[in-house]
Amino acid sequence: TIYAIMPTHTRHVQKAELTRLAQTFLHVKNFHWILVEDSDSQTDLVTRFLATCGIKHTHLNIKTPENYQLKETDPNWLKPRGVEQRNVGLQWLRENLDVGRDKGVVYFADDDNTYSLQLFDEMRHTHGVSVWPVGLVGGMRFERPVVEHGKVVRWYTYWRPERPFAIDMAGFAVNLQLILENPQAKFELRVRRGYLESSLLEHLVTMDELEPLADNCTKVLVWHTRTEKPKMKQENYLIQAGRPSDPRIEV
Amino acid sequence: TIYAIMPTHTRHVQKAELTRLAQTFLHVKNFHWILVEDSDSQTDLVTRFLATCGIKHTHLNIKTPENYQLKETDPNWLKPRGVEQRNVGLQWLRENLDVGRDKGVVYFADDDNTYSLQLFDEMRHTHGVSVWPVGLVGGMRFERPVVEHGKVVRWYTYWRPERPFAIDMAGFAVNLQLILENPQAKFELRVRRGYLESSLLEHLVTMDELEPLADNCTKVLVWHTRTEKPKMKQENYLIQAGRPSDPRIEV
Ligand SMILES: O=c1ccn([C@@H]2O[C@H](COP(=O)(O)OP(=O)(O)O)[C@@H](O)[C@H]2O)c(=O)[nH]1
Ligand SMILES: O=c1ccn([C@@H]2O[C@H](COP(=O)(O)OP(=O)(O)O)[C@@H](O)[C@H]2O)c(=O)[nH]1
Ligand SMILES: [Mn+2]
Ligand SMILES: [Mn+2]
Repeated sequence: TIYAIMPTHTRHVQKAELTRLAQTFLHVKNFHWILVEDSDSQTDLVTRFLATCGIKHTHLNIKTPENYQLKETDPNWLKPRGVEQRNVGLQWLRENLDVGRDKGVVYFADDDNTYSLQLFDEMRHTHGVSVWPVGLVGGMRFERPVVEHGKVVRWYTYWRPERPFAIDMAGFAVNLQLILENPQAKFELRVRRGYLESSLLEHLVTMDELEPLADNCTKVLVWHTRTEKPKMKQENYLIQAGRPSDPRIEV
Repeated sequence: TIYAIMPTHTRHVQKAELTRLAQTFLHVKNFHWILVEDSDSQTDLVTRFLATCGIKHTHLNIKTPENYQLKETDPNWLKPRGVEQRNVGLQWLRENLDVGRDKGVVYFADDDNTYSLQLFDEMRHTHGVSVWPVGLVGGMRFERPVVEHGKVVRWYTYWRPERPFAIDMAGFAVNLQLILENPQAKFELRVRRGYLESSLLEHLVTMDELEPLADNCTKVLVWHTRTEKPKMKQENYLIQAGRPSDPRIEV
């Protein structure tokens, strides 16, 4: 089973994003979607969406602590996003799965990335921690692990290649057993920019042990796409005039 | 058959967009993807992509005339986008399909929108021209046709509701027969902002004849999402330094 832990937060494009992600995941066999809302309680929109999405899922939620929330005007790199949500996903795995009984691979997905179907075929081969390139990230066409003689030897990235694991969240998967056997391993909320992935992986693996996938890390099978925040100028005029669009119509 | 005419243009996110769209369309029965590149010739990227996408398709291309091309700095509403591409798609239908033999529905899709699967079930019921709401468009949560006693009576939109068809490209479908029987009907390149959809529909239908779908136009089944243009700051540093990222790695 592939356990995909995915933080998600309320915004205008959320239902659209979940809709197209579900269409991707419907093609993937033995897939378990662990969707973790950044909210104090589970929203009606996500609850209704999951009820009919046709995918095996677990619905969780946890609100990011106030002082770690991004403000409307903050650049998005200022604070890590989705950290507590991913940790709650890990906690769920540890509380509900059993090393002896459950076999699988854990992947950390974003709700606005783009995933090829081949990516899921590749990550099923993860024994410990596997890695591969990510497209459209770090101000580059792609970042990737550089592989020599079958081993990852360094990181192809412009920004801080000296980081222990200079890799985006979308670029690795972890065998479930490793997650269950290392209960202390989690993402660190108080972390320097760019070190979030390392904060988990340092508990689990060394660079030497990484398993390169996607043809020795030469194929881009996942893209760090970002969806524009839609402009709501006319909607805001209507709200100011006391005539907002019909709230019964879910978007 | 649903014939989806889709303009597409070369940019960093193109392969990602086509990848997730293919995952959507793979779920749709009797679907024919007419992908029309905005280019002088068919690109290798799109050609390779279509070869393995698993969807029935036709690959066309036409470059937008120079004086109608958007410049890097132009706001995107300045000129209509994808016009000649959609017209070439219509031309292909007229040259290759036969009123007596081929039955179907024609839809104009954008390569960055989000489509629910229910949308395709709905549009199969199109006898002449059918219409429905579109999410995240026109500066609003949604725009939609307003239906009274089963008929479209006006347009819910902030901007110029007096337009003959104040509806986004994603909000209507046309029966193939109507397209084939009205060979003069096409999109007008020289059109005022917001009148592109009307320039086609005025040849085909009156407001009174429109067929409202999606529960009398109360459900949002398609979203006018837009994907951020990825920043390429670090990639550009590398290019300036004469060490661009490996061009053999396709993104
Ligand atoms: O306040 C927030 C912002 C983001 N996210 C989630 O965290 C992940 C990464 O966020 P985003 O895609 O905005 O960041 P980026 O891709 O730019 O790193 C996504 O699944 C978001 O839905 C969240 O839970 N709360
Ligand atoms: O120079 C261009 C710009 C856009 N398009 C295509 O035209 C459609 C609409 O463009 P876009 O999504 O940028 O416009 P918007 O959604 O903002 O109207 C999309 O399928 C694009 O790929 C094109 O063929 N050439
Ligand atoms: Mn993201
Ligand atoms: Mn678009």
